[in-house]
Amino acid sequence: MNELSTKDPDQRRSIGAARNPESHEAILEAAEAILAEQGYAGFSIEAVARRAKAGKPTIYRWWPSKAHLLLDVYTRLKENMLEPDTGTLEGDFRLFLTNLLQFWAGAPGGVFRSLIAEAQTDGKAGEALREYCVDRVSHTAGLIDRAKARGEVRPEVDSLAGSDLLSAFAWKLLLTGRLEGMEHEVEAVAAIMARGMVR
Amino acid sequence: MNELSTKDPDQRRSIGAARNPESHEAILEAAEAILAEQGYAGFSIEAVARRAKAGKPTIYRWWPSKAHLLLDVYTRLKENMLEPDTGTLEGDFRLFLTNLLQFWAGAPGGVFRSLIAEAQTDGKAGEALREYCVDRVSHTAGLIDRAKARGEVRPEVDSLAGSDLLSAFAWKLLLTGRLEGMEHEVEAVAAIMARGMVR
Repeated sequence: MNELSTKDPDQRRSIGAARNPESHEAILEAAEAILAEQGYAGFSIEAVARRAKAGKPTIYRWWPSKAHLLLDVYTRLKENMLEPDTGTLEGDFRLFLTNLLQFWAGAPGGVFRSLIAEAQTDGKAGEALREYCVDRVSHTAGLIDRAKARGEVRPEVDSLAGSDLLSAFAWKLLLTGRLEGMEHEVEAVAAIMARGMVR
Repeated sequence: MNELSTKDPDQRRSIGAARNPESHEAILEAAEAILAEQGYAGFSIEAVARRAKAGKPTIYRWWPSKAHLLLDVYTRLKENMLEPDTGTLEGDFRLFLTNLLQFWAGAPGGVFRSLIAEAQTDGKAGEALREYCVDRVSHTAGLIDRAKARGEVRPEVDSLAGSDLLSAFAWKLLLTGRLEGMEHEVEAVAAIMARGMVR
């Protein structure tokens, strides 16, 4: 385990805050443009460095691998997705899945599929994917925690495990090419999961 | 859609029955041996043909792609796994996940990960994986249908969607390298899912 990974999350975030915001942003924008124009196959640290007029060492100082940078770009694309807030857990689960499948039906789905594939053979991509998942699972657990706060969900429910399960379902649909026409299955899964958590 | 895929399952099975059982078995055994000795990377139709002393056309007559053959071998390896029958749906879910994670912690996990990865870029592998999933999801739905039959589960629960969700969770653990030490999460997910289905 390297030194960085033993630091607590707040300390790690403070490293990010020390980045030069301008060139950091320029690199992310260059990476996003390359991804949009050439897809996953054309994406490399070299290409991003050239386009952002940044040195490769600068990029590697902030992102330990291509996969880490790619997941940061992917996360930015995802930020436009609305956070579900329908008032019920079942409604939120349904909307979460519907939004995610729709997002993936566009170019980002291809990027994320490629990244999962690469993570199966490339150690750094695997590490980047795991870190990304820890972050996303904890974020999505917020849906369940908010339902707990309004008294809808039993307090002993494991929000992280529930959130992991929800996203796992979406992953399997992505990886088996079933992003469209899944309304019935999405509804069935949202119903099972919400019923499994409510009081 | 090709002609074959519009035939009903019984008709398709009858094609299998017309195979020469000896050379069919020899090919599967050769494929299994190669996979055990050289892993996914060393696995090819050429290598299997050589080892089984069979012609490549013979193999392709029965399996449309390397991925189809590989999934047949993988299915045979899985046949040694015991079918969960604990008497409760929650117990069955827990045991299903525990057995699968344990199976994947050995060599078959690497094979299946590689196959999912390949399915993201290779159309035939994608098709083989989808066919395999339809078959497995329907098989595992039997756990839920049996719980329905003993009056434990509400009749309106969608067994296929539930089974798809259960396996999706295992896939995500495999693809993010979390096969071991997951007892707590397995328990939490089995509890959420079973509670979501029972009367």
